[in-house]
Amino acid sequence: MNNQLPSVILQNAVEALRTLPGVGSRTALRYALNLMRRTQPEVEHFTTAVSRLKTDLKTCRRCCNVSDSDLCPICSSPKRDNTTLCVVENVQDVMAIENTNSYNGLYHVLGGVLSPIDGIRISDLNIAQLLARIPAEPIAEVILALPTTMEGDTTNFYLNKQLAPLHVRVSTLARGVAIGDNLEYADEVTLGQSIVNRIPFSTPN
Amino acid sequence: MNNQLPSVILQNAVEALRTLPGVGSRTALRYALNLMRRTQPEVEHFTTAVSRLKTDLKTCRRCCNVSDSDLCPICSSPKRDNTTLCVVENVQDVMAIENTNSYNGLYHVLGGVLSPIDGIRISDLNIAQLLARIPAEPIAEVILALPTTMEGDTTNFYLNKQLAPLHVRVSTLARGVAIGDNLEYADEVTLGQSIVNRIPFSTPN
Repeated sequence: MNNQLPSVILQNAVEALRTLPGVGSRTALRYALNLMRRTQPEVEHFTTAVSRLKTDLKTCRRCCNVSDSDLCPICSSPKRDNTTLCVVENVQDVMAIENTNSYNGLYHVLGGVLSPIDGIRISDLNIAQLLARIPAEPIAEVILALPTTMEGDTTNFYLNKQLAPLHVRVSTLARGVAIGDNLEYADEVTLGQSIVNRIPFSTPN
Repeated sequence: MNNQLPSVILQNAVEALRTLPGVGSRTALRYALNLMRRTQPEVEHFTTAVSRLKTDLKTCRRCCNVSDSDLCPICSSPKRDNTTLCVVENVQDVMAIENTNSYNGLYHVLGGVLSPIDGIRISDLNIAQLLARIPAEPIAEVILALPTTMEGDTTNFYLNKQLAPLHVRVSTLARGVAIGDNLEYADEVTLGQSIVNRIPFSTPN
């Protein structure tokens, strides 16, 4: 479809918008034509908001989460339990856990997981910052909440080894059958783990 | 999901990206985090390409299509048949017809169709420019290729009335059963029109 675009400027905008994840040329054209029809201040507002992601967004110096200031709202909140630290891969994971309303501790954002294939090494992640936090803060427990992939497990294993001499309790997320799932549709590894790691029965209150 | 965003800057970017057609907050966040991870020059390239849609993109002074210069490539091409003019609603329609490789005439982009409900009046469309072109150019036929909606039909009717005194042949797109369609699935209006406007049988060559 793009080879018929009447304008190089439009073509360039479509190609730029195509770089967004999951956007093909048809969607990119739709975005471009939509932007084209807006007023100059509206488009400026749009591009400024995007630019500021790079120019003004900071990284929290404590937990490495994105932040507007030096210290993110979670790290600077006096209401959070500063004895528990949850290690996650990225910002979305922080938001996902926050949305559960089941956790009131602090976070540490690794910025990825170890992956030799993708060239992500120990020095690419915020691991040194994590290990420096343990003696400096009153942390009693570290929860490893990394993805259940080979890369996540490798990272879990490495972190667990590094945390061992630091005298903190290390835990990981419970694995098991999801709430609302039929047993027959659960994969056998998950179902197997949920039997091995069974928990005492409690009536819902 | 958004109420948990750790940063106002990120929140603003997500809200800006949400204004794109068909983009919800989850997709906007995915776009924002993707943009956040790019280098400064990459983000600048992205925002510049978008900005130029407003600052540098022109409208062809003849056909009102988008263009990089004063006259679009179609209007300035000596290979196009300048006796036939196809009136379309927007840029995408020009591209759709160009992609058929079945038309070699010129275009006129109205920039919309008459719609009292949406407040689109005659003066909002490029109708004056169209009527000025007919005596000024060697146009013998005007093809009305507007959408088959009530608004499109209203516009067709209005244009036909305005074109009548200008001594040009006025035609419209053939309506009928789409190629590859089963008759039983065609809507009755289309099927009815395709019987009334039946064409002489010709063997495919």
